[in-house]
Amino acid sequence: MDYKSSGVDVDAGNEVVQQVKRLAQSTFTPGVLSGIGSFGGLFQPDLSEVDGPVLVASADGVGTKLKIGFLTGRHDTVGADLVNHCVNDILVQGARPLFFLDYLATGRLSVDVSTAVIGGVAAGCRDNGCALLGGETAEMPGFYADGEYDLAGFIVGIVGRSNLIDGHQIEPGDLLVGLPSSGLHTNGFSLARRIMFDVAGLSVDSAVDDVETGATVGDVLLRPHRSYLRPLSPLLGGEGPRLIKGLIHVTGGGLTDNVPRVLPEGTAARIDLGAWVVPPVFRFLESAGQVSNDDMLRTFNMGIGMVVVCARGAADEVQQRLSQAGEANSLVIGQITKGDRTVEYV
Amino acid sequence: MDYKSSGVDVDAGNEVVQQVKRLAQSTFTPGVLSGIGSFGGLFQPDLSEVDGPVLVASADGVGTKLKIGFLTGRHDTVGADLVNHCVNDILVQGARPLFFLDYLATGRLSVDVSTAVIGGVAAGCRDNGCALLGGETAEMPGFYADGEYDLAGFIVGIVGRSNLIDGHQIEPGDLLVGLPSSGLHTNGFSLARRIMFDVAGLSVDSAVDDVETGATVGDVLLRPHRSYLRPLSPLLGGEGPRLIKGLIHVTGGGLTDNVPRVLPEGTAARIDLGAWVVPPVFRFLESAGQVSNDDMLRTFNMGIGMVVVCARGAADEVQQRLSQAGEANSLVIGQITKGDRTVEYV
Repeated sequence: MDYKSSGVDVDAGNEVVQQVKRLAQSTFTPGVLSGIGSFGGLFQPDLSEVDGPVLVASADGVGTKLKIGFLTGRHDTVGADLVNHCVNDILVQGARPLFFLDYLATGRLSVDVSTAVIGGVAAGCRDNGCALLGGETAEMPGFYADGEYDLAGFIVGIVGRSNLIDGHQIEPGDLLVGLPSSGLHTNGFSLARRIMFDVAGLSVDSAVDDVETGATVGDVLLRPHRSYLRPLSPLLGGEGPRLIKGLIHVTGGGLTDNVPRVLPEGTAARIDLGAWVVPPVFRFLESAGQVSNDDMLRTFNMGIGMVVVCARGAADEVQQRLSQAGEANSLVIGQITKGDRTVEYV
Repeated sequence: MDYKSSGVDVDAGNEVVQQVKRLAQSTFTPGVLSGIGSFGGLFQPDLSEVDGPVLVASADGVGTKLKIGFLTGRHDTVGADLVNHCVNDILVQGARPLFFLDYLATGRLSVDVSTAVIGGVAAGCRDNGCALLGGETAEMPGFYADGEYDLAGFIVGIVGRSNLIDGHQIEPGDLLVGLPSSGLHTNGFSLARRIMFDVAGLSVDSAVDDVETGATVGDVLLRPHRSYLRPLSPLLGGEGPRLIKGLIHVTGGGLTDNVPRVLPEGTAARIDLGAWVVPPVFRFLESAGQVSNDDMLRTFNMGIGMVVVCARGAADEVQQRLSQAGEANSLVIGQITKGDRTVEYV
């Protein structure tokens, strides 16, 4: 017996390593000291302009959105989902990304699929100026169904201690400025798949013109999670933290569960559901699945992927700066009130 | 419909988050600025004694060793496997761990199993003085068989640039000092399971007295991957890098594939297979599976989990320091020769 007969293909693994090296190199920033292939990746941060450097780290997966990739055979977009989700998770504390590592696990390693997935990770890293510093590609026979895989990521960013954003200055009267999402992002897919495929009887190839003209279910559901780094970048550091009191990444749990994560004791949020147009895909899911509005708001982002909390008098300047950075569609969606760290919808 | 009916149990998820918070807090070191629950974990490294700080990061999984956990119902040791593997992967470049994040993915979330797994991660972190700074616990219906999960980890450590260990000074005549492994560590489990269960017809409960008196297959295979941080710690920084030219973590690929990773051009390694006693578990696998010696050496660690490369004249001091730090069983297992970055066994 040898290792290959036990289901592990060392040669395919080595081929993937070569592809990953090439892809990772396309993301390298000046801080990277080594390529992949040493045991660990090396990164020397430029600390010259960071006062009291704080590292901000986060781990995440893509969740069952991966199933849409399996069903459509499109594996080159889930990497951007993962990277952008992680970038947003540290961005809300004021951090810019330094580097990223991925974990890709599969039952039987396909060089093509692995290269497509990690190619998407590398593209996401390049878009965010973040180095793909390393990762692990694991072939685990018997763990994953044929053609399936899991994908997780890990990001490290940096912020000066005085530029940390943590919501502690949020007070009644502050405004909530919402930034549009690009779709479901990476949350609510177990419910969305159940509704689309089991209840509505659609397939990934079904046209859903009432959601988006000319688009299929696969197109709509696969659309990548967007990164908010570019529009928010001018508001980090410098005088940004004067303008931004809190940032909320609207992930699993929706506005209902995520907004309270930055609220100090004694405050609450009142969100005006009439302030923005909920994108058709959410209305379709709500209607086809007969999901209550409460459950929708606790499961999906409903069209708002990021929320800025700022003083009432700063909202105009925040929106103008967002607009200058290419984010023209921000909207005031609510305000901070006195309360018990909850969200009230009006 | 709601989210729970789609197979995702938000309440179980919240219960796990509470347990993880408690476990993570038990690992916190002075650098940790926040608990889990903010979007990202915050860590302020003490840079006062690090000259030219370099971050060293690595990602890894436990691989199919997890199957032994499933079969035995013991979920509290795989976390240490994961942490120790990651600690060793950055240790070989001279780095001490700062923080760790985990990714635990399962089909249906069991609070008890998740708590046991992450409890093991936290114990591993405490043993290595490494903060469990965050993580993701994902419930992914339809991805994993009932009772199964995948577990990955990400580590970040730090080393001063002048204390980086990268093997560039390795030259012919240098010696290889091997440190004993504690068992299979986390590599070769697809082959080991096939041999133990399919070929030898054993179960995890079978006694294997010829491998270890009183032990079962489960005991032998589950024994955690050891960390080499404590014995090697006195050799990092200070005058350590004067003594240590290279470090090799013997993971997937065995001595055959891992030793070359630190060898500079023009050098090779000659390893004396008679220098140490290969532990009975490897002899058992070799014999029961009729595995060639070449394949054994390319798949398993064969009893040597870490290798120090040092100048011939420094070996005594290296071994004495290891002994003072509690590692009494190091052995000279070979030497560096001229050659083409290969391993020759004699």
